[in-house]
Amino acid sequence: MPHWTELIAEKKQRQLKSIPQEWLVSPPPDSTLDVTGFPETCGLLTAREIEITNTSVDVLLEKLACGEWTAVDVTTAFYKRAVVAHQFVNCLTEIFVDRALARAAELDDHFIRTGKVVGPLHGLPISLKDQLCIKGLETTMGYVSWIGRYAEKNAVLVDILIECGAVPFVRTNLPQTVMWPESFNNIFGRTTNPHNRSLTPGGSSGGEGALIALKGSPLGVGSDIGGSIRIPSSFCGLYSLRPSYGRVPYCGALNSLEGQDSVHSVFGPMTNSVGGVKAFMKAVVNAKPWLKDPLAVRKRWHEDEYNLADHGYGKDLCFAIMWDDGVVVPHPPIRRSLEITKAALEKAGHKVVDWKPIKHRLLADTTRSIWNAASSEDYMMTTSATGEPIIATMELDDSDATAAPFRPKKIGITAYQLWQAQKLRRDIRKEYLDHWEATSSETGTGRPVDAIICPASSYAATPHGKNRYTNYTTVWNALDYPATTFPVTTVDPTLDAKKPRRVFYDDFDKGIHEMYDPEIFKNAPVCLQLVGRTLEEEAIIKMTEIVDGALAAAK
Amino acid sequence: MPHWTELIAEKKQRQLKSIPQEWLVSPPPDSTLDVTGFPETCGLLTAREIEITNTSVDVLLEKLACGEWTAVDVTTAFYKRAVVAHQFVNCLTEIFVDRALARAAELDDHFIRTGKVVGPLHGLPISLKDQLCIKGLETTMGYVSWIGRYAEKNAVLVDILIECGAVPFVRTNLPQTVMWPESFNNIFGRTTNPHNRSLTPGGSSGGEGALIALKGSPLGVGSDIGGSIRIPSSFCGLYSLRPSYGRVPYCGALNSLEGQDSVHSVFGPMTNSVGGVKAFMKAVVNAKPWLKDPLAVRKRWHEDEYNLADHGYGKDLCFAIMWDDGVVVPHPPIRRSLEITKAALEKAGHKVVDWKPIKHRLLADTTRSIWNAASSEDYMMTTSATGEPIIATMELDDSDATAAPFRPKKIGITAYQLWQAQKLRRDIRKEYLDHWEATSSETGTGRPVDAIICPASSYAATPHGKNRYTNYTTVWNALDYPATTFPVTTVDPTLDAKKPRRVFYDDFDKGIHEMYDPEIFKNAPVCLQLVGRTLEEEAIIKMTEIVDGALAAAK
Repeated sequence: MPHWTELIAEKKQRQLKSIPQEWLVSPPPDSTLDVTGFPETCGLLTAREIEITNTSVDVLLEKLACGEWTAVDVTTAFYKRAVVAHQFVNCLTEIFVDRALARAAELDDHFIRTGKVVGPLHGLPISLKDQLCIKGLETTMGYVSWIGRYAEKNAVLVDILIECGAVPFVRTNLPQTVMWPESFNNIFGRTTNPHNRSLTPGGSSGGEGALIALKGSPLGVGSDIGGSIRIPSSFCGLYSLRPSYGRVPYCGALNSLEGQDSVHSVFGPMTNSVGGVKAFMKAVVNAKPWLKDPLAVRKRWHEDEYNLADHGYGKDLCFAIMWDDGVVVPHPPIRRSLEITKAALEKAGHKVVDWKPIKHRLLADTTRSIWNAASSEDYMMTTSATGEPIIATMELDDSDATAAPFRPKKIGITAYQLWQAQKLRRDIRKEYLDHWEATSSETGTGRPVDAIICPASSYAATPHGKNRYTNYTTVWNALDYPATTFPVTTVDPTLDAKKPRRVFYDDFDKGIHEMYDPEIFKNAPVCLQLVGRTLEEEAIIKMTEIVDGALAAAK
Repeated sequence: MPHWTELIAEKKQRQLKSIPQEWLVSPPPDSTLDVTGFPETCGLLTAREIEITNTSVDVLLEKLACGEWTAVDVTTAFYKRAVVAHQFVNCLTEIFVDRALARAAELDDHFIRTGKVVGPLHGLPISLKDQLCIKGLETTMGYVSWIGRYAEKNAVLVDILIECGAVPFVRTNLPQTVMWPESFNNIFGRTTNPHNRSLTPGGSSGGEGALIALKGSPLGVGSDIGGSIRIPSSFCGLYSLRPSYGRVPYCGALNSLEGQDSVHSVFGPMTNSVGGVKAFMKAVVNAKPWLKDPLAVRKRWHEDEYNLADHGYGKDLCFAIMWDDGVVVPHPPIRRSLEITKAALEKAGHKVVDWKPIKHRLLADTTRSIWNAASSEDYMMTTSATGEPIIATMELDDSDATAAPFRPKKIGITAYQLWQAQKLRRDIRKEYLDHWEATSSETGTGRPVDAIICPASSYAATPHGKNRYTNYTTVWNALDYPATTFPVTTVDPTLDAKKPRRVFYDDFDKGIHEMYDPEIFKNAPVCLQLVGRTLEEEAIIKMTEIVDGALAAAK
C-alpha cells in the first residue's frame, strides 16, 4: 500500500482534475481576508448567474416551478460560484459537474414533457457534507483510510432529496473524525471563513458554512452532534436548523462513533433564509423518511404545529433570553446581538424574560463522556488502515497540541460506566423539562416559555484553532431540543469594544474573555439560536420567522 | 443491618398485614391446578361484585361515566377479587386498600359535585407492575436491597393515570432483575398460572398476567424489554400491547439496566379486551406525556391512523403469517392457532400471505448482547447492599442452574464492544425495514403487508423454569415494532397431539420440541401477536380489533 501522504497527493490531483479548467480564477492574495465580494467580481459569473445565485431558496423554487429558470441554468450558476468559492476558502471535497448537470437536464426534460415539477425541491442544487454517500462517488469523510471507498448506494436522505427534485451537486469539507468545531483534515486541508480568512468557519460542517456564505450553494446539509450545524452557521452568518433526533433520516450516511446510541448526530439544513429551512424540512418530512430509515420518527409535517397551535397561534409569545450559560460569559458582540433581539421582540409586542440555565456544565461534560466512551478506539480503528496521524489540534501551529479540549482520553470506558453517564444525562433531561414547564408561572401567557433565545457560541468566528468552547450548542443536543440559528449583526469594533471584567467563573472563562480583540474578530457575523422542545421543528421554524421579521422591522 | 432473610420475613409480615382479615379465604389445595373458577365460588364476592369484575373495560368506563356504578363500588369489587387471586397464585406485591378506596371516594365526590368525570379513565382500578412508583409506597421490584425504599413521588405514568381518573390499586409481582420471562424473586416468591398452577404465568409482568386472568384487575400496566408484557399475556390469555419506545412514559419508574440507551423497556397495557388496550393508549397519549417525560415522543393520538388511513382504511387488508421463525418451531397448539386465525381472516375477506423471517436469531442474540453488556455489574451493584443471592434459575429445583439461558456473563464488555453490537442491530433494522417494504410486490393491495401475525412464544405456558426461548417477542423489541397479543384458543390434547418431527434446526429446537406433552400443557391459553411498524400503535389496535372480530365471527 502506498504511504498515506501519497494517497493524499493522488486524491488531491483527482480533485483538481474534477474542476473544469475554464472555471479556474485568480484568487485574491492570502492577505485579503474578506473574500465575500470576489465571486461577483472575479469575472467568471454572468450577470444572470449572479442574479440566480443571489436569490433565496423560496424564490428559486418559485422560478424553477414556473419554468422561468431551468434546473440546468440554476445548477450551472451555483456550480460555478461553488468552484470559485472553493478557490478562495477551500470548502469542497467531491466535485462532479457532469453528473449534476445531467440530473438537472433530466429535471428540465420532465418539466417540459409534463409541465410539472418532480417534487417540492425541483431543480434546487443542494450541497452535502462529506458524509452523505452518493452512489458511485467516493466518500472519504476526510479520512485518508477511506480514499477509494465508492458508495454502492445513496444515503437515504440523498434518495429523498432526489425524489423531491433536488440536485445534489457538491460535497463539502469537514474535520477528521467529524468531532471538532473547525474544519481541517489530512486530505483536503483547512477551510477558512469567507468573511475573514484568518478566522475559522467553524465546524464540523465548516465546508457548508463557508460555501453558503459565499452563495456557492443555496442550501446545504450539515450534521450536528454537539453544534456542528449551528457553529459554522453562526460563524458564517447563516440560517440553520438542528432538528430533533429522528426527524431527518441519517441511514446510509457515513459517520464516526457508529453504534453510539445515546446522543446522536442529526442532519439539518444550512441556508441564507429561514424560508429555505422550512422548504427543506417540509419536503423531507413529507417524504415519509420512516419508510426508508428505521430510526426516523413516524411524525408527519404538521401545519397546525407550524401555525403555533401549541403557542397561542403566535399572538403573544413569551421568549426567554439566556444571556450567559453560567460557564463562559459571551463576548461583547454576542451580548449586543441579544440586546438587539430583545428590543426588536418587545417592539413587536412579544414578552421577553430571562432564561435561567441549570446544570449546563454537567450536561455538556456528561455528553462528552458519552461520546468519548470509545471514540479513541473508533478513530484508531479507522486510521490504522493507512497509518495517517490522528489530528491532535486545529491550531495553525500544530507543534503545540496541549490546548485540544476535544481530544478523547486514549482509553475508553466500560459499558457499565457508559450506562452511568447515560443515566445521568437522562436524569438531567427530566430536570430540565420540569424547569421549562415551571416557567408557566412567570410568562403571563398561561404557557411555559415558548422558546429560548441564546448565543450559538460564546464568540463570533475565532482565529483558526481557537474554537474551544461549544456548550452553547452542545447542551441542546444533550437535551435533544431542536434549535435554529439566525443572523443578527456583525462584529463592529466601535460598538463591541472590549469591556474589562474582574470576576470570572474560572480560568477557562477568563481565557475566553482574554481571547477577545475587536480588531481580530472584526467583520465576523453574529448569529443567535432559537431553541424549542423536542420534535417541535414546525413551531421553532415559525418562531424563527417571527424573530427574523421583528429584527428586520426594528432596523 | 439484619440478614437478608430477616428483611424478607419482616416485609412478608407487613404484606400479610396489609390484607383485610375478612378478605382471607380458604384457597383450594395445591393439587388443584385450574383456579380460574374459584374467585366466584369462594364466597367473598357478592353477586354484584362478580358482575362488576366480569365486565370489560369499555363497559366499566361507560357505567362509571354515567354514574350507574361508583368508583368505590368498582374498586372494592376488584380489590376483593385481587386479594382472592393473590391467595391462589401469589400475584401481588404492594396492597394499599385504604388509599385506593380514599381515591375512589374522591372521584365519586367529584362526580356527584360536578356531574362530570375527572378524565377518560374515571374510576377504573388499574394494577401496576412493581416498578411503577407511587408516592409514599415502597417499591422493591423484588430486590431485598430495596426493601424500605419509599417513593418520594409518583412515576410519570402514575401521575397521568391519576389525572385521567384511574385508581391505582395494587402492585404486582415480577422476577428479580426484571430480566426473566417468569416471575420469581427472593422477597415475594413465585407467581403461578391460574389456568394451571403447575405452569408459569410467564414474565416479567407475570403478576399482572395471573391477576388479570383471574379478573382481579380490569387492566394492568406491564413493562416489556424482550417480551415481558406479551409473554405473560400470552401465557394467561390476555390482550396486551407493547407500544413503540417513547409512546408511554417510563420516567420516574424503577428498572434494572438503567442507562442502557439502546433496546429500551417500555410500559403498556394488559387487559381482557382490545377495547381496554385502546382506552388506555388513547388516554395516556392524549395526556401529552412529553410534557412530563423528556423521552416521550411528541406524537398525538391520531384518529385517522386508528381508522387505518395508511392501510386503505381497512377494507382489504393483507396480513402475513409467520408460522416459524427459523430458529424454533412452535408447538402444535400454536400452529393450530395460526391456522384458525388464517381461516377466520380469509373468511372475513382479507388476504393472508406467509411472512418470511430474516435474521431473527442474529437480531435476538445481538439484543441480548446489548442488555448483557453490563447487566452483571448492574445486578451485583444492586444486590450487594444486602448480599441477597442473584437468582440463577427459575427452575423449581434450583440445585440445577445449568439451564439458565437468561443469565449474563459475569464480566461486562467495553463501551467500544457495545457500540459494535448496537451498530449491528441498527443495520439489521434497516434490512428488516427494506424487507417489509418489499412485500408490496406480493400483497395485491398496492401496499406492503399491513401487519404480521405470529406466535407470541413457541409454546403455551410452560412448567415453571422451562420458559427458555423468547425470540418470538424479542425480535420486535429489537426492531421497535409495536405488537399486541390476542387470545385464540387453549391447549386441547385431542386437537393438539404431539407430532413426530425428524428434522430440527439444532439441538435447542429439538429440546423445545421434546418439552411438549399435551397433558402437561392442557388448558393453557394460546395467544398470538399482531405486529406493526414503529409508532403505529393506533393502526395495530384497530387491526387487532379486526382480527378479534374475524375470530369471533368464525367461531
